Amino acid sequence: MAELREECGVFGIYDPKGKCADLTYYALVALQHRGQDGSGIAVNNDGDITHYKDLGLVNEVFDAERLAELKGTMAVGHVRYSTRNASAKFNIRENVQPLVLRYVKGNLAIAHNGSLVGTDSLRKELERSGAIFQTTTDTELIAYAIAKKRLEAGSVQGAVKEAMKVLKGAYCLLVMSPQKLIAARDPWGLRPLCMGRKGDAIVFASESCAFDSIDAEYIREIDPGEIVIVEKGTITSIRDHCTDSSSLCIFEHIYFARPDSNIAGQNVYEARKKSGMLLAQQCPVEADVVIGVPDSGIGAAAGYAEQSGIKYENGFIKNRYIGRTFIKPDQESREIAVKMKLNPLKSLLDGKRVIMVDDSIVRGTTCGQIIKMLRDVGVKEVHVKISSPLFLYPCYFGTDIPSTDELIATNHSVDEICKMIGADSLDFLSMENLHKICENSACGFCDGCFTGKYPVDVSE
Amino acid sequence: MAELREECGVFGIYDPKGKCADLTYYALVALQHRGQDGSGIAVNNDGDITHYKDLGLVNEVFDAERLAELKGTMAVGHVRYSTRNASAKFNIRENVQPLVLRYVKGNLAIAHNGSLVGTDSLRKELERSGAIFQTTTDTELIAYAIAKKRLEAGSVQGAVKEAMKVLKGAYCLLVMSPQKLIAARDPWGLRPLCMGRKGDAIVFASESCAFDSIDAEYIREIDPGEIVIVEKGTITSIRDHCTDSSSLCIFEHIYFARPDSNIAGQNVYEARKKSGMLLAQQCPVEADVVIGVPDSGIGAAAGYAEQSGIKYENGFIKNRYIGRTFIKPDQESREIAVKMKLNPLKSLLDGKRVIMVDDSIVRGTTCGQIIKMLRDVGVKEVHVKISSPLFLYPCYFGTDIPSTDELIATNHSVDEICKMIGADSLDFLSMENLHKICENSACGFCDGCFTGKYPVDVSE
Amino acid sequence: MAELREECGVFGIYDPKGKCADLTYYALVALQHRGQDGSGIAVNNDGDITHYKDLGLVNEVFDAERLAELKGTMAVGHVRYSTRNASAKFNIRENVQPLVLRYVKGNLAIAHNGSLVGTDSLRKELERSGAIFQTTTDTELIAYAIAKKRLEAGSVQGAVKEAMKVLKGAYCLLVMSPQKLIAARDPWGLRPLCMGRKGDAIVFASESCAFDSIDAEYIREIDPGEIVIVEKGTITSIRDHCTDSSSLCIFEHIYFARPDSNIAGQNVYEARKKSGMLLAQQCPVEADVVIGVPDSGIGAAAGYAEQSGIKYENGFIKNRYIGRTFIKPDQESREIAVKMKLNPLKSLLDGKRVIMVDDSIVRGTTCGQIIKMLRDVGVKEVHVKISSPLFLYPCYFGTDIPSTDELIATNHSVDEICKMIGADSLDFLSMENLHKICENSACGFCDGCFTGKYPVDVSE
Amino acid sequence: MAELREECGVFGIYDPKGKCADLTYYALVALQHRGQDGSGIAVNNDGDITHYKDLGLVNEVFDAERLAELKGTMAVGHVRYSTRNASAKFNIRENVQPLVLRYVKGNLAIAHNGSLVGTDSLRKELERSGAIFQTTTDTELIAYAIAKKRLEAGSVQGAVKEAMKVLKGAYCLLVMSPQKLIAARDPWGLRPLCMGRKGDAIVFASESCAFDSIDAEYIREIDPGEIVIVEKGTITSIRDHCTDSSSLCIFEHIYFARPDSNIAGQNVYEARKKSGMLLAQQCPVEADVVIGVPDSGIGAAAGYAEQSGIKYENGFIKNRYIGRTFIKPDQESREIAVKMKLNPLKSLLDGKRVIMVDDSIVRGTTCGQIIKMLRDVGVKEVHVKISSPLFLYPCYFGTDIPSTDELIATNHSVDEICKMIGADSLDFLSMENLHKICENSACGFCDGCFTGKYPVDVSE
Repeated sequence: MAELREECGVFGIYDPKGKCADLTYYALVALQHRGQDGSGIAVNNDGDITHYKDLGLVNEVFDAERLAELKGTMAVGHVRYSTRNASAKFNIRENVQPLVLRYVKGNLAIAHNGSLVGTDSLRKELERSGAIFQTTTDTELIAYAIAKKRLEAGSVQGAVKEAMKVLKGAYCLLVMSPQKLIAARDPWGLRPLCMGRKGDAIVFASESCAFDSIDAEYIREIDPGEIVIVEKGTITSIRDHCTDSSSLCIFEHIYFARPDSNIAGQNVYEARKKSGMLLAQQCPVEADVVIGVPDSGIGAAAGYAEQSGIKYENGFIKNRYIGRTFIKPDQESREIAVKMKLNPLKSLLDGKRVIMVDDSIVRGTTCGQIIKMLRDVGVKEVHVKISSPLFLYPCYFGTDIPSTDELIATNHSVDEICKMIGADSLDFLSMENLHKICENSACGFCDGCFTGKYPVDVSE
Repeated sequence: MAELREECGVFGIYDPKGKCADLTYYALVALQHRGQDGSGIAVNNDGDITHYKDLGLVNEVFDAERLAELKGTMAVGHVRYSTRNASAKFNIRENVQPLVLRYVKGNLAIAHNGSLVGTDSLRKELERSGAIFQTTTDTELIAYAIAKKRLEAGSVQGAVKEAMKVLKGAYCLLVMSPQKLIAARDPWGLRPLCMGRKGDAIVFASESCAFDSIDAEYIREIDPGEIVIVEKGTITSIRDHCTDSSSLCIFEHIYFARPDSNIAGQNVYEARKKSGMLLAQQCPVEADVVIGVPDSGIGAAAGYAEQSGIKYENGFIKNRYIGRTFIKPDQESREIAVKMKLNPLKSLLDGKRVIMVDDSIVRGTTCGQIIKMLRDVGVKEVHVKISSPLFLYPCYFGTDIPSTDELIATNHSVDEICKMIGADSLDFLSMENLHKICENSACGFCDGCFTGKYPVDVSE
Repeated sequence: MAELREECGVFGIYDPKGKCADLTYYALVALQHRGQDGSGIAVNNDGDITHYKDLGLVNEVFDAERLAELKGTMAVGHVRYSTRNASAKFNIRENVQPLVLRYVKGNLAIAHNGSLVGTDSLRKELERSGAIFQTTTDTELIAYAIAKKRLEAGSVQGAVKEAMKVLKGAYCLLVMSPQKLIAARDPWGLRPLCMGRKGDAIVFASESCAFDSIDAEYIREIDPGEIVIVEKGTITSIRDHCTDSSSLCIFEHIYFARPDSNIAGQNVYEARKKSGMLLAQQCPVEADVVIGVPDSGIGAAAGYAEQSGIKYENGFIKNRYIGRTFIKPDQESREIAVKMKLNPLKSLLDGKRVIMVDDSIVRGTTCGQIIKMLRDVGVKEVHVKISSPLFLYPCYFGTDIPSTDELIATNHSVDEICKMIGADSLDFLSMENLHKICENSACGFCDGCFTGKYPVDVSE
Repeated sequence: MAELREECGVFGIYDPKGKCADLTYYALVALQHRGQDGSGIAVNNDGDITHYKDLGLVNEVFDAERLAELKGTMAVGHVRYSTRNASAKFNIRENVQPLVLRYVKGNLAIAHNGSLVGTDSLRKELERSGAIFQTTTDTELIAYAIAKKRLEAGSVQGAVKEAMKVLKGAYCLLVMSPQKLIAARDPWGLRPLCMGRKGDAIVFASESCAFDSIDAEYIREIDPGEIVIVEKGTITSIRDHCTDSSSLCIFEHIYFARPDSNIAGQNVYEARKKSGMLLAQQCPVEADVVIGVPDSGIGAAAGYAEQSGIKYENGFIKNRYIGRTFIKPDQESREIAVKMKLNPLKSLLDGKRVIMVDDSIVRGTTCGQIIKMLRDVGVKEVHVKISSPLFLYPCYFGTDIPSTDELIATNHSVDEICKMIGADSLDFLSMENLHKICENSACGFCDGCFTGKYPVDVSE
């Protein structure tokens, strides 16, 4: 139960049979875990782009009537989480994607997942030439970067290629022009993006679980730096920005991605299980039972149990209906909020020595409350195993983390944290083991949040 | 009951006491007749601009909670009617104003009433330099025109002045920058805009009725071509674009404006009454009673009665609750729609020779139905007097009129129209008399819809 | 602009062609002035009764989709105003009508306009026998009264007849059973109810204006005490409760009813005009112009002008969009509220001696504010003429009036009131003249609010 | 993933500190799994009962503002699932509980979980005496039964006791009168109801998980037939209807209840685990991995794995955001619907022999689709183990099951079902083992859906 949240999921489809809006809707529901603040779909009906979007979950924004109005043979969709410290100021209707716009060559719809760095200078330069910004998203910057180069580049994919020369940081783009559907991924491959097929339809998604949900077949990743163009069913690729190295956010496997997604040949659940197995080797402890904190700690807990031979139990029951439940802003209600989400099973845990596996510790407050709940049902010992290293540095690529001084690990030793959360012992996955959890992946990784070393210059 | 509709109303306020959102809300309700499709308010809290807007009437978009969130000492508000032949495509949330944006010098909120001409070339030029358009409003064009010139001009009012060199057509602008509230009006003065005062607060509105509703005092018109700047309570004016001539849309007096508004020294109701008096002189007819078609025909009918000595009666009862009533799209329901709006009073009209005064005939269908309703309650003769000349030409300045081939007067003689609508006689106000109805106004008028002669070159 | 409000309007239809829901919807819009708090429609599809209802205006509660779901060949509809001093407690969803229920002989839908007296003992008696009440409406009491007698009576109309023996006060009922549509009116005829025809369809409504709006033809009043039964297109009548006398609420003509409605042979607008003419004879005064306070004062003003020969003017402009506008609960906003609704036309009134005609004075506060607005536009003298007598006593039959100690006339002389509202002179219609305004009506009248004498014993 | 659904959850609280509405809201969220169609809360403020309820989830119906309006020191809340074959006709706003009513002794709020039998005669008898029914719930019948006896009984608890003499079937009642909060449970104890304490507050709930979520302490079950009365903090009990036998619905443990709830001393998750262990002994099979169908099959799968020594895996990923997702009514979309909910993990299952544990098979269609999904990810063998016996008979006590001819087991042998769903083998828990899963419970059980033998006469 990490206290982190990520920034957005994207889906795109070219379908000559034209069931685009429905399939996009179903796929966005599968990607909902990547963003719950806003949702949108733009469709392309013979060159004419229409759209609908609003704040809210996919099934709050769209109903049968809305979907029926969105006719076309191409579509891009988006689920949004508003990072930037979740300020209400950024969670506004104007920011919901896809961004639909008119530029020198007609209409364009752009859906974006990621976070750029060095945008201040890019924005300033655009503003000096007369640009106006109606949102606070990077997507609008990307749109300008493409629009500026369109005439000169001679094609929309050419303009995307030119734009990518000035864009730094994480971006997975789906760009829909009157005739084309284009997928592009930053040269560092910081966020995932893959391609699939369903009959004659070509699909793109942030995660492969979206393909499973609509019964589409996974084909491959979009390579870091690659631009894939779908036009009238033909797929072409521009690889000018591709290099040999790549730096996928390692937190996708630890926490963000759905366990049933595969990224660069590595299943997410398997990676989590592996992290648990490595933890069991790295820091064994005597105990009666292993439990995972739902949902993201489950896989690692199963791995820990398998490796250690200690019994695995479904120790927590999670309330599936918690949704947007209003919680009063008093202390008692905030404590109730955690109890409403999770309930430990006394019959399984009472009197036991428990190994509790979770994905990360950010501020430490939730973890402390959960441990208290375990003590309340009679747990004798709580040994906390964290399936990632100490979270020490900011992320510049789309993970919404608190400011560094709120990170418990930047200010306290492991022993101190252990005492603060009330555990009997506490261990974090070592950096060495971290690199083993995805060692069969066909990509490299960014571990900047643990090391402070980033693949892109973040000095601005 | 003209079948025409107009494009938008604006309101702006600088109020050191900071009750801006509430007063803007009340004022927009007073201007609601100028646009019922969308509403918005942007407020300025010490340089920080926030806003809320949506499709719907003012009292549908705003409630106590929304207003409480909008704090500040400056505000601009807008009510929108989506012209362009009312295509659903233009009636979208993105088009609702004020347009709030970030440009080279921080935030800006722009509210606009009017319609530009020659925008295609301006838009093309901007697009060629990389501009992107997220709405289909002229307001966005205006925003670009201002943003392009901001650095060079040295001030926001300077940028407005520069922008006005390239903007052609009707525009009344309220521009709110971090420090200033600026009102600007096109050099032809096609749409109305006036200034008032309420205690220490300075207010601007499309019509003076907005001042009455918030108990503010009317000061004067913004002159055609004038730019008025309010900064920290001080009012200054730029008059570079002002000329001696002006061309206020004559239809504001005939139909659009609220009867209790005064424009350039001329009360609207008085102008309508005068038009009726002139009609009575121009084309007298023997009859028992004079009635007006609510609401815009009432004033002219009163004038006709007063001049002719024929008895005035409130011949129609209008349903005040018709609102957004759903009408089934079958023929019977469409006929019911008119009956739901208006009901003639049989007790006053049965057996009578009636003079029915209305403001205009556009397509002729509604007029025909109303005359049939009069026949049904026993009216013996129906003499129709129209308080404006034959509607023959398109408007390029913000009046939403059907295409020329739908205008009944372009294709039929007065005699033919008279037969088509089932009247016993039919007269239109002469061009000569039209010019007399506002002869005390401190401005000139555009009568392009009657003459085809426009104050601005509309050849593009 | 009386500060009074009335309790509900009803509409019913038997239509073998089955367009019942649509026509009921249109008719309810025409009756919306009788109640704006809630709306509902129940339809009968071959004996099966379904319904939809909610708080809100007719066009807020119903849309195309809702109407399409309501299929049937009979329908009853209702618009509700929640009287009882407008306590929020009574303005709840449960109270919205029609009341749809299941009783010993299947389903029943009941729509009711009026207010019973002596309900406490009836309610107590029912409660003692085990009844439960889920609403706070009289309608539920009526439903019980009918249900109790159904078996014994042998038919639903028989049960209605029996129920009427114990019901005292004002009630106009539309009762829809699986096979029948029944209209019933209290023996005193306190509230209006009439019958019409549209092709093969039979219709009932609180006011004839509903017939006009759907192009139906008025047939006749339901007589006081009469029960009319429609079954398979055949109309029968039970007249056991009919007597020679009747007591229609005189305030229907003065204020409640729409001017285009006819009640018992008397047009409402005509009655208002007559009241104005009588006022002109009763209390003439020298003045320059006569104006009416919209909407209910307009008719009387026209009559006063016609009789006195003093010029009539449309002196006030009314904002048609005021609707459910949120008004802040501070003093300034409350004053603005009146200004938002009404604006006097300075150009017509400045420097004039004005006769202002209104329908009634209840608390006196609104009237005072309006007079102040007249003074502000330069009116020299304000002579107030009220088209009804002094409002002195409570109403027990469905008019929502404040408690007696809030009625200005119970505590102050006419001279005192004149001073309090700031008028130059003040006159009320005499009782003698009141009785003349409807002297051609085919019914008697209740004037209990002026005389304290009621047609029904109200001692409980 | 049973295709069954249950009828409602209830919660009640007496809290002298008056935080009743908030705690009821949080508790209802914890009980949301028992009903997602409607929610309501009634509060008692010094004898005055107010309420709010509507169709929708708890967090859709209530927000901060609604909760703030519900002040009081007692409350009852309800979550509703509309059984009766889920006909739209029953899923109406009128049916949402608590039922709030006025009867001979003031106000009453009643929340009910369960389903009565023999209601036709009871209803008929009430109707013959003049009762009217405004809902289609049993709750209204119960209200009448209480109201009829109130005077004679001398107290509300006395009336509840008398009413229980005529009520047959499943009912857990929370009744709130002006002074008292009363909990009552049918003599057969068919549905669960328990009591707890939080500081000075007394609480009642359908399941103990509601207590955990608000940090209340479980005290005990309400005994079958017991009536518990809370008045001014004092708890008394009426046990006239209590007997030695009881018949809790065994499906509460198999499927309905939340795994973290304890009923009559038996934890639900433990019971499920036990059922899995018994299955492993009853019908062992060679396989590589055991998986459970989320959520209700998880516990039994864990038990099966533990007993058999075969590895347990989290084989399915469940989409947490599926909610009220609109699914198009075509075949492809219906298949997608299952894929959107569940996704099998290929990396864990490919090439494996799998034991899939689920709670029940009703129609068999969903089970067949899930097995097909397993085949699609490469599963070699699918052995299905069902943790309950063959579902053969209807339920009369609140479980919403299809008509008997839709139950796959009534028309097909186990072998046939195995073929129809595409499994390699299929086993159901034996009746003998069923009775062992809760053998430590302090209650008896109803197993009528497996045996056709019911504790109450259901012949009517």
